[in-house]
Amino acid sequence: MFAQAEIVLKPIGVVRTAAVGDEVKDKTRISQIVIRNELAEALDGIDGFSHLFVLFWLHEIPDEQRKTLKVHPRGRKDLPLLGIFATRTMLRPNPVGLTLVELVKVEGNVLTVRGLDAFDGTPVLDIKPFDHWDTAKDARVPSWWIKLENEKAQPS
Amino acid sequence: MFAQAEIVLKPIGVVRTAAVGDEVKDKTRISQIVIRNELAEALDGIDGFSHLFVLFWLHEIPDEQRKTLKVHPRGRKDLPLLGIFATRTMLRPNPVGLTLVELVKVEGNVLTVRGLDAFDGTPVLDIKPFDHWDTAKDARVPSWWIKLENEKAQPS
Repeated sequence: MFAQAEIVLKPIGVVRTAAVGDEVKDKTRISQIVIRNELAEALDGIDGFSHLFVLFWLHEIPDEQRKTLKVHPRGRKDLPLLGIFATRTMLRPNPVGLTLVELVKVEGNVLTVRGLDAFDGTPVLDIKPFDHWDTAKDARVPSWWIKLENEKAQPS
Repeated sequence: MFAQAEIVLKPIGVVRTAAVGDEVKDKTRISQIVIRNELAEALDGIDGFSHLFVLFWLHEIPDEQRKTLKVHPRGRKDLPLLGIFATRTMLRPNPVGLTLVELVKVEGNVLTVRGLDAFDGTPVLDIKPFDHWDTAKDARVPSWWIKLENEKAQPS
């Protein structure tokens, strides 16, 4: 069933940002994605899209934390203990981040993007154009998720 | 700049589907994702979400095709030659697929989903809940993309 035991990826580029700590969560923040020089040609035409998905490697997660099965979302004990696949926690068997960003500009092998919640030095794995098929209208989310969203919208 | 040369992932599960060939592109198709037994607990609470992102490994892409930099979308010479990061081609440096699916039901370590365009036996790398922050309103896409979408909507 699981014949292919290991899958090997190689970074296509790296994140550059001045943001540190929680600043990376600020969706108005600008970051750069510096693509490996030999892959620059693979960006041709990307400026036709306003939004991109960025897949990146959460390189600061220690290997032993990849064994985590359950978490309280954002470490909050007042929220239910949930399986990690029901959350966006970084503690995952394969710590790959996925974020939708706005493409601001492209210069050579450098993409300038808005809203990438990744630290400086984060290896980037893939970039995919965003389209409406990546969207679900009226998606249902659980009550603990809505609670967190409401708190973000109205900070106390 | 690229100190971390290699990143190693391990499948969390596998796709099971009766669909073959182009049938996998049918967005009404039902598939199963069979999660490794030891990770079953990591699904707790996932049924609170109606939609999930599935990240999967395009295991049938030969290594040499990972060096592709440009493609005509869907092999069509009447469309521009584009960098692979401007397309959703499977020929990517890191052939990771990303698809939004509808979660139909969860039974033990098996997720039943609708709309997963992956072949039987495809290794699954991650599953993430979908939320409105993964969406861009009025995202801009290039004209060749719109042309392809219109053709899909109105097959000749």
